[in-house]
Amino acid sequence: MSENQVIIFDTTLRDGEQSPGASMTREEKLRIARALEKMRVDVIEAGFAMASPGDFESVKSIAGHIKDSVICSLARALDADIDRAAEALKPANSARIHTFIATSPIHMQYKLRMTPEQVIDQAVHAVKRVRNHVEDVEFSCEDAGRSELDFLCRIIEAAINAGAKTINIPDTVGYAIPHQFSETISQLLNRIPNADKAVFSVHCHNDLGLAVANSIAAVANGARQVECTINGLGERAGNASLEEIVMAIKTRHDLLNVDTKVDTTQIVPTSRLVSSITGFSVQPNKAIVGANAFAHEAGIHQDGVLKHRETYEIMRAEDVGWNANKMVLGKHSGRNAFRARLVELGIEFESDAELAVAFGKFKELADKKHEIYDEDLQALVSDTQHSELVENYRLVSLEAYSKTGETPIAHVTLEIDGSEQTASEQGDGPVDAIFKAIEKMACSNANLQLYSVNAITGGTDSQGEVTVRLERDGRIVNGSGADTDIVIASAKAYINALNLITSDAYRAHPQAADV
Amino acid sequence: MSENQVIIFDTTLRDGEQSPGASMTREEKLRIARALEKMRVDVIEAGFAMASPGDFESVKSIAGHIKDSVICSLARALDADIDRAAEALKPANSARIHTFIATSPIHMQYKLRMTPEQVIDQAVHAVKRVRNHVEDVEFSCEDAGRSELDFLCRIIEAAINAGAKTINIPDTVGYAIPHQFSETISQLLNRIPNADKAVFSVHCHNDLGLAVANSIAAVANGARQVECTINGLGERAGNASLEEIVMAIKTRHDLLNVDTKVDTTQIVPTSRLVSSITGFSVQPNKAIVGANAFAHEAGIHQDGVLKHRETYEIMRAEDVGWNANKMVLGKHSGRNAFRARLVELGIEFESDAELAVAFGKFKELADKKHEIYDEDLQALVSDTQHSELVENYRLVSLEAYSKTGETPIAHVTLEIDGSEQTASEQGDGPVDAIFKAIEKMACSNANLQLYSVNAITGGTDSQGEVTVRLERDGRIVNGSGADTDIVIASAKAYINALNLITSDAYRAHPQAADV
Repeated sequence: MSENQVIIFDTTLRDGEQSPGASMTREEKLRIARALEKMRVDVIEAGFAMASPGDFESVKSIAGHIKDSVICSLARALDADIDRAAEALKPANSARIHTFIATSPIHMQYKLRMTPEQVIDQAVHAVKRVRNHVEDVEFSCEDAGRSELDFLCRIIEAAINAGAKTINIPDTVGYAIPHQFSETISQLLNRIPNADKAVFSVHCHNDLGLAVANSIAAVANGARQVECTINGLGERAGNASLEEIVMAIKTRHDLLNVDTKVDTTQIVPTSRLVSSITGFSVQPNKAIVGANAFAHEAGIHQDGVLKHRETYEIMRAEDVGWNANKMVLGKHSGRNAFRARLVELGIEFESDAELAVAFGKFKELADKKHEIYDEDLQALVSDTQHSELVENYRLVSLEAYSKTGETPIAHVTLEIDGSEQTASEQGDGPVDAIFKAIEKMACSNANLQLYSVNAITGGTDSQGEVTVRLERDGRIVNGSGADTDIVIASAKAYINALNLITSDAYRAHPQAADV
Repeated sequence: MSENQVIIFDTTLRDGEQSPGASMTREEKLRIARALEKMRVDVIEAGFAMASPGDFESVKSIAGHIKDSVICSLARALDADIDRAAEALKPANSARIHTFIATSPIHMQYKLRMTPEQVIDQAVHAVKRVRNHVEDVEFSCEDAGRSELDFLCRIIEAAINAGAKTINIPDTVGYAIPHQFSETISQLLNRIPNADKAVFSVHCHNDLGLAVANSIAAVANGARQVECTINGLGERAGNASLEEIVMAIKTRHDLLNVDTKVDTTQIVPTSRLVSSITGFSVQPNKAIVGANAFAHEAGIHQDGVLKHRETYEIMRAEDVGWNANKMVLGKHSGRNAFRARLVELGIEFESDAELAVAFGKFKELADKKHEIYDEDLQALVSDTQHSELVENYRLVSLEAYSKTGETPIAHVTLEIDGSEQTASEQGDGPVDAIFKAIEKMACSNANLQLYSVNAITGGTDSQGEVTVRLERDGRIVNGSGADTDIVIASAKAYINALNLITSDAYRAHPQAADV
């Protein structure tokens, strides 16, 4: 590897998923992993294998399907965790295990109840244990921001001696400021005698809006791996956003003199995929991937600068994949064109039957909508690919009525565990009435936490994608549904959420790891 | 002023408004200005008085109503601009004029067609002209990022000698990287002999996600004013976000050793107000003001760290105004309670008649919704306060019908210029059908650019707030409508947008200034 290459380590599927409500199914994770591979991300942290059987299966499935990126699983510095990670990673072409232990006084004392010497011993033991399984060992100092620098130097030196190839310094609570964080990285690299034997990595959180800046500051001072997520997804204010880091490195090559291997034209499609799967919207003024990121107010065109317009642009929209995947398919597209486009989008079906179902839905949609965009396909597939999901609830039919001055009413027929039921309810709006009618039959006692609508594509025939977030007994799920009729999309999303909350395949919430 | 105080200069109403689709009416701007004053922002850039009669009126109205913050108008370095700004600012308690000229070779040559010496002369002339009107002169070097440092030093020295009290260095295209930007600021402060006679300011754009970090880096190197916007609103990826800058300064006082006067508990209410008025959503993982910014995944609670939870939190949600304004009003609240709450929210009506209309709408809403939150009140007032708007189109009644397997149909009755018309249309969904029916009568030829729905508050009885963005002949407007029924809210939003696009009171798009 060149000295000037920065390794992009994507943790959308692990740390990103820890965001409340961002849980994903195994299929959804695989689709995102395929998009990341296509984008040429170096390392994909696929999950935390020990956290749950679902996480184990996700890591294993991604390890089995992705060939070009290194696949990584998180593991505490415990034998059982490490062995479980290794088992999940067996199918991988290139596997990494990322093990961690807390190094701050408060964590060592209260969480681990261990002395600093014991923590070093356990770290060394864990790194060696990982080496029994794979060559590629990453070691993280949990809560490094509040750890003593001398102790960090000691434990990192020991970890590198034991065989760690990557040393990760997280800013877990998003407290760092760039000029101070770069000083920390620079001190570690200078003071640790064997620092040249490992790649130094950073993992920054965005609580003060500085995650990307802290990552870039670390790179300018010698870090050569950055951990990040698509759209900056993650707990609280999220992680450092991959797209901003990659484009800052690319755009300011003059200053930073480093590169990544990322194919930047895949940025926008991958951003949309993650947003559509998790139901986490991207605000219009988000850098790089927001709808307005490359939109200029019309006024600017009017003055004499127009002819030198290009000098205003520090990036080109095409370079990050805007407009890359315009139209596409229509009413007359056949099954082969449909399948081919899906393959290009990194979507594969496990069976022909599943493809047939998706194609049927595509034909239905094409009847209502002239042009089918990639986003429509993503939504349609999200709607189809829940093969691991037992559908306890299925929408049979629905009727809803809105009239100014009258109370809206809805009639809903569901198939519940194989038998049909119908209920009618009034509500504050047709959506409210539908949700009430569904609840009357389902009696789930779930709380509606979020209801959101995204128009997937422009135009009046655009599909609406609705996200419904339900909570029950501390368990949170996001259901989604797409339809050109947002009232019907809302019903689909609610029913999808019900199926998820009553299914074992979907984890309640991922085990949080503060790395 | 203390040496350690950082002046917060909010430009939500000027640069923020340049975001495509973020145009605001005079009343809306005044409501935001009131919220900014309550938040104790030092300087409010209220607009660009010369840009249009609407901008002039907005600056004048804000200058007349706001007493605690300095009110500023932008002005090119031209006599007519400066005099117009001064006229708009006449009612102000404390007024500032912010004048600018381009200082980069490319701008001087192609846009201004002037020699560097001529540019310095014009800058000096402009600063002196401003001094004839007000003491408080701010001078900006447009496109400073691509200007030669020697030239910047010369023109800034001359501007300070002519009487400029604040010198602003914009990173117009969002190209700077913190360690390099701090070097620029530091050089300017060291090399300009009279630098101590002015406050240095920065104005950063967020194209690479680094606007806040660049601003903080400048502050750490001696800048004492930061220009920013609520929610980071602004063209493309927006401006530096006020809430992140203020909270980084507050949270890292240990490192930065500076303060602002901002009342941080007003941050979340103001963020919501701006989001609701502009229709620009805030993503859940946005720092400080995103819905998840203070939400932790449940798993984290399970381990032993729980008892030391407080040490994990670098900020408290209460300190930025989360949960500050929970419930509030209900069905039995009277007109006085209603008015009192509005006053607390910084909303005042120009007449009793307007108050009566709003109170009527409140009563209607309270019939459908048990608890009325501040967000509901904001939406309701947004709906009411369009006194300057001529309502060419008014919704009389509406009926819409959705049924699975059938094409949705809508019947809409509008009052157009005083006479009633009815139309029925089919569509892909009830909303599509309604929009088609409205267009059948209105024949506006406008293009639908954006349709978005935000649930204003949680719960199934939540109001939906719909934003409809229409474009015609390059003119863009955002219409909004709120109702517990999102189908009806959609119709209201479309009609509001139609009234805006046919009204002169609403500017097509603000004159863009690259400062």
